[in-house]
Amino acid sequence: MTVKLVVLYTQPDDAESFDQHYLGVHGPLVDELPGLQNWDTARLVAAADGGEQTYYRMAELYFADQDALQAAMSTDQGRATAADYGRIAPPGSRMFIAAVD
Amino acid sequence: MTVKLVVLYTQPDDAESFDQHYLGVHGPLVDELPGLQNWDTARLVAAADGGEQTYYRMAELYFADQDALQAAMSTDQGRATAADYGRIAPPGSRMFIAAVD
Repeated sequence: MTVKLVVLYTQPDDAESFDQHYLGVHGPLVDELPGLQNWDTARLVAAADGGEQTYYRMAELYFADQDALQAAMSTDQGRATAADYGRIAPPGSRMFIAAVD
Repeated sequence: MTVKLVVLYTQPDDAESFDQHYLGVHGPLVDELPGLQNWDTARLVAAADGGEQTYYRMAELYFADQDALQAAMSTDQGRATAADYGRIAPPGSRMFIAAVD
């Protein structure tokens, strides 16, 4: 069953430099994760429910199953990507594993 | 620019009856939204950051652009889908518009 790693980034102090790092450094790390089927990232531009705009950016990384995701994250490339996440993710950012129906 | 409507459902009181309604009633409403390019839904099975498992289910509905999304939601089908969301979304559920990079 396809799974995805869902990453929700809260609002950064400086959106422009966040995006520069995200698209220029973090994205290329994600690109090379072993077993990654595809991924996309999007900027959250509005809260459609009228609530707080909690998150600034999201990413979804698709893998064949949970084993493939865990295998990817335990490689050097996975650890480098996680370390970079730790550098850039503003406080309150979240990371979930989701099983696609 | 492709946009997606991102819906994050918090934990329902009864996951089984939530999923029954979601997959049996809500999904078929979403399927018929005018201008919808594609969509998927997934169950959040783990918090990969060790934090709270805030959300139970998510959905992402892809449209060609923000105008297409807004047009879809202002049709009878869109209003019926939003009304059904109102019936099933547990408190704290969120809905965002995201611009795909």
